[in-house]
Amino acid sequence: MTSAHSLVGPALDVLERNDTGLFVKPGPRVYPFQWNWDSAFVALGLARVDPERGRREVRSLLRGRWADGMVPHIVYHDAGADYSPGPEIWGSADCAGAPSVATSGLTQSPVLATAVRALHEADADREFLEEVLPGIDAWHRWLERDRTFDDSGLVAIVHPWESADNAPRFDAALARLDPSELAFARSDRKHLADDERPTNVEYGRYLAIVDRLRERGYRPASSSEAPFAYVDLAFNAILAVAEEDLAFLLGELGGGGERAAGRAACLQTALSTRWDETNAAYRQRDLHGDDGTSETIADLFPLYAGVPDEQRARKLFAESLWSPERFGPSEESPWAVTTVSKSSAAFDPRRYWRGPVWINVNWFLVRGLRRCALTDEAEELRRHTVRLLEMSGFAEYYDPRTGEALGSRDFSWSAALALDLLA
Amino acid sequence: MTSAHSLVGPALDVLERNDTGLFVKPGPRVYPFQWNWDSAFVALGLARVDPERGRREVRSLLRGRWADGMVPHIVYHDAGADYSPGPEIWGSADCAGAPSVATSGLTQSPVLATAVRALHEADADREFLEEVLPGIDAWHRWLERDRTFDDSGLVAIVHPWESADNAPRFDAALARLDPSELAFARSDRKHLADDERPTNVEYGRYLAIVDRLRERGYRPASSSEAPFAYVDLAFNAILAVAEEDLAFLLGELGGGGERAAGRAACLQTALSTRWDETNAAYRQRDLHGDDGTSETIADLFPLYAGVPDEQRARKLFAESLWSPERFGPSEESPWAVTTVSKSSAAFDPRRYWRGPVWINVNWFLVRGLRRCALTDEAEELRRHTVRLLEMSGFAEYYDPRTGEALGSRDFSWSAALALDLLA
Repeated sequence: MTSAHSLVGPALDVLERNDTGLFVKPGPRVYPFQWNWDSAFVALGLARVDPERGRREVRSLLRGRWADGMVPHIVYHDAGADYSPGPEIWGSADCAGAPSVATSGLTQSPVLATAVRALHEADADREFLEEVLPGIDAWHRWLERDRTFDDSGLVAIVHPWESADNAPRFDAALARLDPSELAFARSDRKHLADDERPTNVEYGRYLAIVDRLRERGYRPASSSEAPFAYVDLAFNAILAVAEEDLAFLLGELGGGGERAAGRAACLQTALSTRWDETNAAYRQRDLHGDDGTSETIADLFPLYAGVPDEQRARKLFAESLWSPERFGPSEESPWAVTTVSKSSAAFDPRRYWRGPVWINVNWFLVRGLRRCALTDEAEELRRHTVRLLEMSGFAEYYDPRTGEALGSRDFSWSAALALDLLA
Repeated sequence: MTSAHSLVGPALDVLERNDTGLFVKPGPRVYPFQWNWDSAFVALGLARVDPERGRREVRSLLRGRWADGMVPHIVYHDAGADYSPGPEIWGSADCAGAPSVATSGLTQSPVLATAVRALHEADADREFLEEVLPGIDAWHRWLERDRTFDDSGLVAIVHPWESADNAPRFDAALARLDPSELAFARSDRKHLADDERPTNVEYGRYLAIVDRLRERGYRPASSSEAPFAYVDLAFNAILAVAEEDLAFLLGELGGGGERAAGRAACLQTALSTRWDETNAAYRQRDLHGDDGTSETIADLFPLYAGVPDEQRARKLFAESLWSPERFGPSEESPWAVTTVSKSSAAFDPRRYWRGPVWINVNWFLVRGLRRCALTDEAEELRRHTVRLLEMSGFAEYYDPRTGEALGSRDFSWSAALALDLLA
């Protein structure tokens, strides 16, 4: 830890201000509940400064576990908080196997095992591992069992909220939703967010999917029971790394990580088969639509899981990740990486996952570049990201043309990952 | 064992007559050496009647192990036997890591672990497992390490002799060989076989590949160093099952099979991604050419490894394996399964792997159908195969129009697999 770095104090302040005592809120205002991957990022940062506080983050998230193993994407510890949609849209209390605390019926990108590994490496605590690993293992096994819908060897998400919700790669799948369901969701329910990020139409579609999934207790048995089913490469790359980290941690307890290790290898193999040489990226799969690259940053996420060999990683870096025309810095748009390729018609530099720079995305890519032996490139992206944080603070996301802070300020995961990027 | 079945006595006679004392020759005349997968099939049959004799078969094959783990496709125990090409074309004595006995420089479809499991299940012998499993494990790890040339998650063969040599799926790759190399091989070497099976031109090509591989000690570091490099699905499905069987056997010794089990799962995942819905078959990959189904029976081999779910297996059975127009029985060609689709221009009902029925192929498919829960279909193919054996004896292969015996008579693997099919 470069403890003298000017960002450390402010980052610690953000995390402290957002701390509810039970968990760290994603941001000071808009997000009053505990989100799954937000908590994992917070724990990753806290590993650098206060591992015990990081362990509390993991424990509070796992209070939301369902009986079948799912760790939900939101845990509503304070059900009365002022946020819409709140726990009422899920009705988790009416679902078999739901926990006593209200939660959503979806999951989210499984970063948690990776956070627990960071906590363990900072400050080994065997009892903590014994406490939390069974729940994480059950979650991973649930993903393997209940979310394998096709022959890609990968798992599917059933709602954009499980990954980067309004990313353009989901547009075609959302546009395909039955308009009658959409009307139903929008007229019968009044949870349309009035912030500008996902448009109201998008929000109506999200709620329409929730309505359909709720009829099945949020457990579609196949993709045909899910109105949205998408083999998201970001989610799968994150899971591959999480399985490796889980295997490592189970090994620290004396064994039993073979299943997770084998699963990591299989996910990596399956990701590898999705390479597209022409686009220097990996192909996503919409289970109700097509296969193909999506011009969103998720197409490059197999890098994070160490999938490309060095030669391929260099091609991916030069022609995609750092290309001025695509995700990399350019004269008009010097901040990287954009979450959508600048060459895409869908690129929108100020709208949520449709173009802006996100700190967690950069963090994944720094790790991926290092892992694939592009250490100079990793260091360049790390410094670039730190400069952005220095200039614009811990925002939720940033305009790639100006570096302007967008969305929530004092955003917890940006502060937490700053601590990791500076360490 | 239906020991009263009229085939059992004759099958035992064939194996006894072909037995050299050290190993069972593939056939009484044309094949005086020990071939890799032939030995495994023989051991599988001997497991039903004389496991100790089966264990000898495994031990003798493993005498041919190379230092890096490769188990070669031919072991020339009697280097003076009258067969061309003999050990001189390989020059294994000049290669680093070759064993003291002369061998080829190639490997062959790894059925051996599956045979050892059959022997173990018939008559458990811990000492035998301790003796042979390290060599088999080293071979599988060698395949994983030295024969992974692309991102398919599968291994490649570097010579048609490693699988079903003159199968039409290899035609395009062979036709692409540099004519100058071909001329060299044909003029400088005089090993052109004069039997009618692979044509002389094909044989010249086989020898041209050997010449090139020999320059690299039979260890191409990448596909670009191999004039022929093919991701053969039959080879990979056989390897997937062999890895499972190896994992099971290592478990019998107390553990250490996690790597093999994980590898089996990855191979199955990788095979699964190669499904082609239109052709109800799986896509092969020529590493110097194209991806696609090949209209040869190897396109259906993922069935053997339990890769398709039941629905897909039923489609594969109805539209490919048992389809009268493709590999199944039809009025003009009632014997199944053909090794090439009857709808293919390459189908040739009398020429080696270009159309005839082979007992080992049927055996693989009976196992695969059972594994994929098509038990009635498995039983139908099993009975069909037994009827062919009753009618035409233990031939090397059979004309699918008449059931006429072709190639070698008293063929060891046909006799051995009859014992297994009747058990």
